[in-house]
Amino acid sequence: MKFAVSNKMAGMKPSAVREILKLTADPAFIPFSAGNPSTEAFPEEQIKAFTEEILTENPIAALQYSVSEGYPPLREVLRDFCDRRYHVVTDQDEVLIMSGAQQGIELTCKCLCNEGDVVVCEEPSFVGALNSFRSCGAKLAGVPMDEDGINIDKLEQVLKTTPNAKLLYLIPNFQNPSGITMSLEKRKAVLALAKKYDVVILEDNPYGDLRFTGEPVPAIKSLDTEGRVIYCGSFSKVLSPGLRVGYLVCHKDIASKIVIGKQCSDVHTAILNQMICHKFLTEMDYDQHIARLQGIYRERAQLMLRLCDEYFPQGVTHTVPEGGLFVWVTLPNDMDCMELVLAAKDRMVAVVPGNSFLCDDTRKCSSVRMNYSTPSKQRIEEGMKILGEVLHDIVK
Amino acid sequence: MKFAVSNKMAGMKPSAVREILKLTADPAFIPFSAGNPSTEAFPEEQIKAFTEEILTENPIAALQYSVSEGYPPLREVLRDFCDRRYHVVTDQDEVLIMSGAQQGIELTCKCLCNEGDVVVCEEPSFVGALNSFRSCGAKLAGVPMDEDGINIDKLEQVLKTTPNAKLLYLIPNFQNPSGITMSLEKRKAVLALAKKYDVVILEDNPYGDLRFTGEPVPAIKSLDTEGRVIYCGSFSKVLSPGLRVGYLVCHKDIASKIVIGKQCSDVHTAILNQMICHKFLTEMDYDQHIARLQGIYRERAQLMLRLCDEYFPQGVTHTVPEGGLFVWVTLPNDMDCMELVLAAKDRMVAVVPGNSFLCDDTRKCSSVRMNYSTPSKQRIEEGMKILGEVLHDIVK
Repeated sequence: MKFAVSNKMAGMKPSAVREILKLTADPAFIPFSAGNPSTEAFPEEQIKAFTEEILTENPIAALQYSVSEGYPPLREVLRDFCDRRYHVVTDQDEVLIMSGAQQGIELTCKCLCNEGDVVVCEEPSFVGALNSFRSCGAKLAGVPMDEDGINIDKLEQVLKTTPNAKLLYLIPNFQNPSGITMSLEKRKAVLALAKKYDVVILEDNPYGDLRFTGEPVPAIKSLDTEGRVIYCGSFSKVLSPGLRVGYLVCHKDIASKIVIGKQCSDVHTAILNQMICHKFLTEMDYDQHIARLQGIYRERAQLMLRLCDEYFPQGVTHTVPEGGLFVWVTLPNDMDCMELVLAAKDRMVAVVPGNSFLCDDTRKCSSVRMNYSTPSKQRIEEGMKILGEVLHDIVK
Repeated sequence: MKFAVSNKMAGMKPSAVREILKLTADPAFIPFSAGNPSTEAFPEEQIKAFTEEILTENPIAALQYSVSEGYPPLREVLRDFCDRRYHVVTDQDEVLIMSGAQQGIELTCKCLCNEGDVVVCEEPSFVGALNSFRSCGAKLAGVPMDEDGINIDKLEQVLKTTPNAKLLYLIPNFQNPSGITMSLEKRKAVLALAKKYDVVILEDNPYGDLRFTGEPVPAIKSLDTEGRVIYCGSFSKVLSPGLRVGYLVCHKDIASKIVIGKQCSDVHTAILNQMICHKFLTEMDYDQHIARLQGIYRERAQLMLRLCDEYFPQGVTHTVPEGGLFVWVTLPNDMDCMELVLAAKDRMVAVVPGNSFLCDDTRKCSSVRMNYSTPSKQRIEEGMKILGEVLHDIVK
C-alpha cells in the first residue's frame, strides 16, 4: 500500500549529519564529522556506582511511572545550579526535565508555532533544531552571522518583514556549527528586538560549560525580566548524551503547556536516567569534572586550529572557538564545499558539508563543520595533514 | 508577557488521569485510579545485575550517542520476539525503538495526519493516546464498543462519512480503560473496513502478554498482508515503565518517516535503557517471568471481580477482563459517574471518571475505570468494601 504522509513530514529528509555519521561509522574514517563527546570525557566509573546505589536503595522509584515535569529532586537541584551558574531562574520560572535538549526544542516550537509560522534562526544553525522546527510545520528564516554573533541589522530586517515570526532560536555560546560566541552587546540587542517584535527567544546552551578560553558572557535569559526567554540545557555534553536528559527553564505560563506536550510525547523522561543526573550534580565535584573536560577540549581545539594555520592553503579561513566542539572552515572564492567533502571522503576523512546547516540546505555553501572532540590527538594530526593535502589540490 | 500558544496546544488540558494520580499520590488513598504495574512485578535484582554488566563491559556504548532507529541488537531480538509471539513481522517491516509506546503513538499520528484530519478510535479509549492525537491537531471520532470489541456497523458508518479519516487506533487486548478483548471475527472485519476506506490501523498492544485467562487472539497485524497495520509494543507493563522503552513494527515505507520524526523528537531512546531491555529478552526466562506477572494480576483481578459481585448493588455492571490492568464499572440509569468519583474520594478511594476516556471529555459518562494491579490484595478488599457502601448510598 501507499502511505499518505502528512504535509509537514512529507518533505522531511534524514539529517545529513546523521547519515554522514552512519557512513563514517567505519572506524577507518577520521571522524571530523561527529558531534560526540570524547570517549575520555565520560565519568563511567561514577555513573556505574551511582546506578548501583539507585537500584539498591530505591529500585521501585527508578523503575515505576513518574510525573511528566521530571524527577522532583533533580528539578530542585537544577534550579539552584542554573541560578548559581547562569542566573537564568526567576520565581516565575519552572525547570522541566526533557528527554535531551532536542525534546525541549521540539516542544517549544510545538507549543508556540502554528503550521506556517516562522522560526528565525542564526544561519548556519544546528540541523537537529532546524529539522524539529520543519517537522512542526514551521518555516525557517535564517539570519547571517558575524564574528561576534548574529547580524543585528539583518535580524531586525527579518523580524520587521515577518509578522508571523514566533520564535527566535539562538545558540549564543560556541554555536553549532560555527563555533561563534555572541557578544554581550549583541545579546542585549537581540533581547530588545525580540521584545520590540514580540517573539519568544529559545536560548540553547548545550556547550556553555565547555568554555576553554576567554571570559563567560551572561546568558540572554539572565538579562530577561519578562519571561520572554526559554532556556535550554543538557547533560549530553557534560555527562552523557546516551542517557538523553536535558532541561528547559521557562516561565510557568508556557511551562504548563510544555508539560502537556511532554505527556503526549513520552509521558516522562526515563527516571533511572534522571536519578543518575541528580547524583552527578549532588555527589560529584562538578567544577573539577568540568575542568577536566575543558582541558581535553582545549588541547584538541588548539591542536586543530594550529594545524589549520599550518596545513591549509592561503584563502581557507576558520573560526576560533572559545569552547564547545566545532570549528567552521570556509573555502575561498565561493567554492562549493562538496568538492572538499568528497575529496576528503576519498581519503577517509569525514567532514560535514555546511549546507546541512542552512535553512535551505539545497543552497551552495563554501564551508564545512569540523569537530575536534571525537578524534584523538593523533587522529587529528593525521586528518589535518590529509585535509591540507586535499585543500592544496582543490583550492586554486 | 502573554504567550501566544499554538492552536493545537491552546485547548489542551493536563490528562485528567495524571492529575488524579497526583491527587492520590497520598498513600492514604486506595489507588484504584492508577495504571502502574504492581511493585511486586519488577525484576529489580536482574535489572540491577544487567545494568552493572552493561556499565562494566560496554560503558562507552551505553553512554554515547546512538542511532535513531534503536540499539541494533535490541531491534534484532525484538524482530524474532514479535515474529514468534505475535506473527506481526514481515520482510517488509522494520522494528523501531521508541521512548515508550506513547512516542510510537504520537509519531504515527504526526507522520500520517494533517491538522484537521481524523483519528477514529474505540470509545472509551486510552486518554494518553487521545491527547497525543489532539496535540497533533487531529480530530477524534469515537466508535462505541460491544462486549467483543468495537461496534463494526458504527465503525463503518464513521469511516463512510469521514473522508479525512486517516488512522484507526485500536487496543485489541484488554483495552484501556474497558478491559474488553476484540474477537477474531471483529479483528478481521476491522481490517477489511480499514482496507475498504483506506485508513491505516495503529494496533496498540501494551498488555498482550498479561493474559491471565482464556485463549490468545491473533494480532490484527498478523492478518495484514499489505502493511496497513502499524503494531505498537512496550516494555512498560512486562519490565518497567520508568525505563521508557517501547517499539513499533511497521512497513519500511512509513518507518523511514517515523525515524525522521524520532530524530526530531529526542534523537534516540536512552541507550542504557535499550541495553537493559535487550538483556531482559536474551538473558531472562521470559515465559517464566510473564507467568509470574500473570499470576499476580489473575489473583487481583479475580478478587476485584468477585467483590464487585459481592458488594456492589444490583444494576451496577462491570466488564470481565481476561488480562491487562483494568475493569470498567458502569452505574445504572445513566447516572453521572462523578457522583461515585467524588463520594469515593471522600472515603479515600480513587477511581477515574469514565469521561476522561471519551473523545469529548465534557460529556456525561456513567462509568469509571478501576485498576487492580497497583493496590495490594488487602487494599483491594478494603477499597471494594468502601465502594460497595458508597454505591449503596448513591444508587437508588
